[in-house]
Amino acid sequence: MNGLFDPRSVAVVGASDDPAKWGYWLARGALEGAGRRGVYLVNGRAGQVQGRPAYQRLADLPEAPELVAIVTPAASYQAVVEDALAAGARYLVGITAGVDRAYPGGHPALAARVRAAGARLLGPTCMGVYDGATDLALTWGTLTPGPIGVISQSGSVGLEIGYLAARAGLGLSRFASVGAQADLTTADLLHPVITAPTTGVVILYLEDLSLGRSLITFADQARSLGKRLILLSVGGSAAGERAITSHTGALATPDTAVDALCDAAGVIRVHTPAQAIHTAQICLAEAIQTRLAEVVPARPRLAVVADSGGQGALAAELAERAGLVVPALSEAAVAALRELLPADAGLTNPIDLAGAGEADLTVYPRVAELVAREADALLLTGYFGSYAADSPALREPEEAAARQLLGTPCFVHTMRTDGPAADLLRTGGIPVFATIDAPVNALAAYSGATEGIRPLPHPGADPATGSAPQTDDTAGFEDHGIGSARQSGEAADPEDRRIRPALRSGEATDSEVVTPGQLSSGGDVRSALAAEGVLFPEGGFAPTPEEAGRLAARLGGTVVLKAVGPAHKTEVGGVVLGLTLAAAVRAEAEQMAGRVRLDGFWVERQAAGGVELIVGAYRDRNLGVLVTVGSGGVYTELLADTATALGPLDHDSALRLLGRTKAARLLEGWRGAPPCDVDAVARAVVAVGRVLAARPDLAELEINPLLARPEGTLALDLLATPGATR
Amino acid sequence: MNGLFDPRSVAVVGASDDPAKWGYWLARGALEGAGRRGVYLVNGRAGQVQGRPAYQRLADLPEAPELVAIVTPAASYQAVVEDALAAGARYLVGITAGVDRAYPGGHPALAARVRAAGARLLGPTCMGVYDGATDLALTWGTLTPGPIGVISQSGSVGLEIGYLAARAGLGLSRFASVGAQADLTTADLLHPVITAPTTGVVILYLEDLSLGRSLITFADQARSLGKRLILLSVGGSAAGERAITSHTGALATPDTAVDALCDAAGVIRVHTPAQAIHTAQICLAEAIQTRLAEVVPARPRLAVVADSGGQGALAAELAERAGLVVPALSEAAVAALRELLPADAGLTNPIDLAGAGEADLTVYPRVAELVAREADALLLTGYFGSYAADSPALREPEEAAARQLLGTPCFVHTMRTDGPAADLLRTGGIPVFATIDAPVNALAAYSGATEGIRPLPHPGADPATGSAPQTDDTAGFEDHGIGSARQSGEAADPEDRRIRPALRSGEATDSEVVTPGQLSSGGDVRSALAAEGVLFPEGGFAPTPEEAGRLAARLGGTVVLKAVGPAHKTEVGGVVLGLTLAAAVRAEAEQMAGRVRLDGFWVERQAAGGVELIVGAYRDRNLGVLVTVGSGGVYTELLADTATALGPLDHDSALRLLGRTKAARLLEGWRGAPPCDVDAVARAVVAVGRVLAARPDLAELEINPLLARPEGTLALDLLATPGATR
Repeated sequence: MNGLFDPRSVAVVGASDDPAKWGYWLARGALEGAGRRGVYLVNGRAGQVQGRPAYQRLADLPEAPELVAIVTPAASYQAVVEDALAAGARYLVGITAGVDRAYPGGHPALAARVRAAGARLLGPTCMGVYDGATDLALTWGTLTPGPIGVISQSGSVGLEIGYLAARAGLGLSRFASVGAQADLTTADLLHPVITAPTTGVVILYLEDLSLGRSLITFADQARSLGKRLILLSVGGSAAGERAITSHTGALATPDTAVDALCDAAGVIRVHTPAQAIHTAQICLAEAIQTRLAEVVPARPRLAVVADSGGQGALAAELAERAGLVVPALSEAAVAALRELLPADAGLTNPIDLAGAGEADLTVYPRVAELVAREADALLLTGYFGSYAADSPALREPEEAAARQLLGTPCFVHTMRTDGPAADLLRTGGIPVFATIDAPVNALAAYSGATEGIRPLPHPGADPATGSAPQTDDTAGFEDHGIGSARQSGEAADPEDRRIRPALRSGEATDSEVVTPGQLSSGGDVRSALAAEGVLFPEGGFAPTPEEAGRLAARLGGTVVLKAVGPAHKTEVGGVVLGLTLAAAVRAEAEQMAGRVRLDGFWVERQAAGGVELIVGAYRDRNLGVLVTVGSGGVYTELLADTATALGPLDHDSALRLLGRTKAARLLEGWRGAPPCDVDAVARAVVAVGRVLAARPDLAELEINPLLARPEGTLALDLLATPGATR
Repeated sequence: MNGLFDPRSVAVVGASDDPAKWGYWLARGALEGAGRRGVYLVNGRAGQVQGRPAYQRLADLPEAPELVAIVTPAASYQAVVEDALAAGARYLVGITAGVDRAYPGGHPALAARVRAAGARLLGPTCMGVYDGATDLALTWGTLTPGPIGVISQSGSVGLEIGYLAARAGLGLSRFASVGAQADLTTADLLHPVITAPTTGVVILYLEDLSLGRSLITFADQARSLGKRLILLSVGGSAAGERAITSHTGALATPDTAVDALCDAAGVIRVHTPAQAIHTAQICLAEAIQTRLAEVVPARPRLAVVADSGGQGALAAELAERAGLVVPALSEAAVAALRELLPADAGLTNPIDLAGAGEADLTVYPRVAELVAREADALLLTGYFGSYAADSPALREPEEAAARQLLGTPCFVHTMRTDGPAADLLRTGGIPVFATIDAPVNALAAYSGATEGIRPLPHPGADPATGSAPQTDDTAGFEDHGIGSARQSGEAADPEDRRIRPALRSGEATDSEVVTPGQLSSGGDVRSALAAEGVLFPEGGFAPTPEEAGRLAARLGGTVVLKAVGPAHKTEVGGVVLGLTLAAAVRAEAEQMAGRVRLDGFWVERQAAGGVELIVGAYRDRNLGVLVTVGSGGVYTELLADTATALGPLDHDSALRLLGRTKAARLLEGWRGAPPCDVDAVARAVVAVGRVLAARPDLAELEINPLLARPEGTLALDLLATPGATR
């Protein structure tokens, strides 16, 4: 895509002299590359634009324009596109909004026409394209060249990132505003932005995650080049969802799914443009990257050094709150610091120089060198970097101290970022920040985005396109004989319309005690899960009260009696718990038949004790199967204690996912209870992922509760939802 | 304290010409007020300092210096203090560190000496004092005058706040760095800083909360003047705690206690200097304050307006994440917007002008006026405020649009804060921010700090001093007959050394069934709680297995048998649950007597079902009694679902506190269960607070679990910890 980022020639159609207009900024930006390429300004009135002769039509140009940027009104769009293609354009950059309505056939027709002519289109309704290395600045405002690649579904967010980068002493390598993505998509642009030699890190702003699992491949490619991807996305709140539906027409991807994708890909997720820049600063700091590569995935240890007790305390506390480790120093380090520092200094971590830094600026690098041995990264916070800004006489000693810091895995928060030492640090590869939360949160985001859980490949999630398989959304649920065996003591959620009959009469022909795997045909979800090792309570179908009584006697112990047939069994009196005597089962069954319209009875052993979990899987339209595990039963919603990953998972990944929940602590044998069989829980997580992946007619599977006990698990209730995606 | 902030005359002892030294900055700052007061520079070598004749000794001055700032070495401190007092100084400001060791008798002797002479001391080891209205700048660096009052236990944090304020177009009214607080404390300085006419808002940086509950009084005073307090504190993490112990020698106050104090006082808590400034910007915006005063304590509704879909979406999502309400607009508002905006605009909240703002800047104020009717505050995010910075030709229309916004409850995030429109907005009272998270989080912090829970007064927490009563820390626990009745099915925590015998033999003389209130003497915590309405399971003492059997028969139903005497009853086999037959109770008691050394038996009705809560109270050294309620039993640590307030509480406050927990949702009748008796829970919360307040010999009381059921509550286990404070 070099023709997009470094075209041999550029034409701007709609070039203007009015700085309040897009035509002005594109023409101005195009002219910046006039020493490198042919630049042609086109304006219907011709004459002069920005002091250069303008052309009335594209047909008048002396050479074919490789790239044509279009800012003319939507009404004339079709004519301009035809002119551009006729003139030999290979790339069109469409700024104008409202093209979808004005172009006959809308965006699809526009894209098809451009591609048929062998050209590609960026936009329309985009904010252009920028390459800091090739003097290509076809966008609004004034961007600064630098190491950050940006692809944005919002031009303004891209511009904000550019401005914030400049404020941090950085700039952009390549920037593409993808607009409506009529032709070129985010996925198309990732390769050229990642691989540009000037790119050191890439920031994506996405509202629409249609690039799907291909993000994992792109992130791997970037990491193989020593580069990281940072994702700024939106849609995880009601207002955010409204906004993106209105802005790009996309459907929001749930927050947990975006997190799962980033986790699998090792992509760093942020929530504001400023956080994206702060994180980029950390990613671009080679010394920090090198050092952290040795310790991650363990949580990095941070040493905090300040000449002020207050600023050190604030920084250390923020770091711990953000999940970083701020370890106390070793006795040897404390002894060495004691030699160096005054009596009232703070000798543990945070290290409070207590004025020694101010008295002698060389103390900063000397202490830094000493404590860098005991930590993975070092934060200098407070006044260092600002001395010369307030006291120009301190310029030389402060710069000398800063020079000694270069090469250490260090970052600096300083009260005034406009001093010469701050400049020296920045250009020497040490990130400098104006506020203390910025670097701490950025380091936490950076170091947290490495321990990803990777899904197994499955046909429903093509890593190249990330698209879900095309399935018949109207496929009936009843055809699949989904089992439901709600037996937990809680009242069923009256709004849960997905509860289905446990078994249909005829699936088992008599009252023999059978294991669930034997119960029904191979297409049955319940038996598919059973085949993957999920255990259901032992039980069976009984067509009459007498058979139910006999079945209970054969099962022995305490049993649950359920009506087969009605939905919402619990609400209609179709479930009776805690029965032990065959006669009682028969009597209850007779009464039940009197009050509930039913097709027979289901009798199963009643489970007790254990930890209630939820294990589920669903299919997202962009990301394929996702699996979830966490606290279940009545605590599902109350605790919101679930972990989600792209699926299906293998056993080890399922164990890791489980380990991210609070429920995992209960399973370990919380407060004296015996530990539960976590392998059995992991098998259930593996199973729901595999079964859903193999069943494109189902949108969602949920076992809740899955009872985890020392001797294994039991799936007490199973819900399945038909459809292609949730 | 006008002599501190506006002295008639100032002397700087240790004045210097070297800008790397404190003596330079104090002298320079003092001279700024030379037009207003006598300024005298003192230097042992006399001669000239900063172009002014210097004095060799304080005794040489032509008038008494009302304020003397001291930057001379600690070794000469005593002599300088004597000279200053002899010269008639009323206020000493001590910058020098290490005075505690150098001054004979340390800080207490120094403070006593100063006070005995009728003077007061700020510091030592402080960074001075500043008053923007009186040209008093006795501190390092260059501060800007403005509306923010600052009191800081770290001079550098105070300086950072000053620099950040200036960057936001604000400045400081009065700033006091309290240093070691040998004499003047934070509490002493709050009144003069709050009441200064130039102060509009006050930021405190505290490491030591010895001002205690007096903060509530100060916050009330401030609010009566239309001013708010903002607290930046530290100590809620291990590293933060190490840091403040090292820095100020103070003991950290737990994070939840600081939050409880802020909640009671309506003080806004922040975690970084930048957050403090952002929150101050919101506090200083009169239009926002006026509007929010009408809606708070309800969560404020925020309207988000952007010319860019992406920036609007990001802002709206951040706002919802921060707890603000971003409501969809009414149909009428949407219809009105449709008239004003192009077809592809986003007409709900966030409002995406989709280029209409850029095309016509008057659209911004017109839309703002329209949507301000549907929200309590309005956020303009994106490019507005930056147009003229990029395109000077747009200065006039952008300023005109900005002028139209003045007076609306609006705040602005703009990509470039250096434009003329941003200046106009700031000076017109509309806060302007450089990043989007800053205003959103600040508004959330501002509006969240209003729904406080106020404690009832109690003797243990003097609102004037906040100090806990002096009690004998060594008072034995055994003297108070604390009951423990652990009967929950869980295994007891083997590390819980505080579990005490349920009852001592002799407290009840026979096996009569008695209610707990009758069981023991009036000094007993158990009966004190019972007198406050806390119910314990019905039960009684039985000296022999036979009596235990008879008692069980009289109690009826399922009972718990416990050994009386041993600690850690569960671990030693001193608790048997689920007994129903008198013969079984007798048999179990006989066996128990064989394996456990005991003084008799306790038999009580076994409780079942319900929601397990924790209800507790403890005494903090600075803040007095705090009460806690939340999820109990095995979930206490796992969920960390507790709410804490200053105590004791009245019934309504206890209900509000309970309402802040997730457990409250369980009590409401979660998923079909019957609702529990929340009034009984509130009575228990009231009771623990009142009983602890009346018992200065106890540090802590904890009922866990308190079983909440539809028919009331039962305290299943009671722990009490002796001591003055936790």
